[in-house]
Amino acid sequence: MIEQPLRRAILRAVIELDNLRAELQSTWLREIPLATAIGIEVAACGVGGITSRAPLEPNSNVHGTAFAGSLFSVCVLTGWGALWVALRHAGRTGRIVVSGSRIRYRKPVGGEIVCRCAPAEVTVRAALDQLHSTGRAKLSLTCTIDSEEQLAVTFEGTYVVLAKP
Amino acid sequence: MIEQPLRRAILRAVIELDNLRAELQSTWLREIPLATAIGIEVAACGVGGITSRAPLEPNSNVHGTAFAGSLFSVCVLTGWGALWVALRHAGRTGRIVVSGSRIRYRKPVGGEIVCRCAPAEVTVRAALDQLHSTGRAKLSLTCTIDSEEQLAVTFEGTYVVLAKP
Repeated sequence: MIEQPLRRAILRAVIELDNLRAELQSTWLREIPLATAIGIEVAACGVGGITSRAPLEPNSNVHGTAFAGSLFSVCVLTGWGALWVALRHAGRTGRIVVSGSRIRYRKPVGGEIVCRCAPAEVTVRAALDQLHSTGRAKLSLTCTIDSEEQLAVTFEGTYVVLAKP
Repeated sequence: MIEQPLRRAILRAVIELDNLRAELQSTWLREIPLATAIGIEVAACGVGGITSRAPLEPNSNVHGTAFAGSLFSVCVLTGWGALWVALRHAGRTGRIVVSGSRIRYRKPVGGEIVCRCAPAEVTVRAALDQLHSTGRAKLSLTCTIDSEEQLAVTFEGTYVVLAKP
């Protein structure tokens, strides 16, 4: 049986993550009109990363599969969101911008777009240290999208975090 | 004074390019819902390349500048469009897909998004030869977006053309 204080700590962590999930979702939809057009949702939000999803219909292309620009947008938002959650979870805020990225389309995505970004703990910790000591951090994050249980898209984005004055 | 046959040839070329511009624009808006959400338009269409534009408002981000995903989408469509025009101008058709790309955000875009793709003639000719002899061509295209007369975004996309059966 789990001890009472531990149960309370787990409950607090679950509530905090669910609040972050809801706040991230509403930030995307309120501030970025294209996020609404894409129909992106935060499907899961944890300390180890986030998962987002978007329906195919508003994101289809001339071939009836997912448009390259939609797949990129879902990836760039998911990386941004994973970093935003990691910062908030560490009690920090910052202005997050993307400075560049590479994307590879390995196979078409013919259904719901599901994207995962799970930053390595060491990467996040190094960025937090850098942000604390210099007011600026730069890090690379990888996002992936699978289709029919195979890797369909790999995205690597370089993000810069600037401490808020 | 320009000779009558030459005048007719110039007029035919202008009409052909204007028809291609209109057809590309309607293809984007009919087949790709996100193109409508972005509000992308073909601003200019020539044998040397195309220019597209999109308003800032539907493409803004949390910082009030253009969203990285919108800038990418405008670039990937402009590269696709420039290739589509080059193929049609050469009397060819093909299924065009993007297999990967790199993008670099050099400075924020705080107004209308204007994107240019001007493929080198030698690149297009090599792709047409490859398509003719093997039924498949692969080429790299560069798109750029300026902001306040400075280079703001550079995009390099790898496109694959497959001959239609």
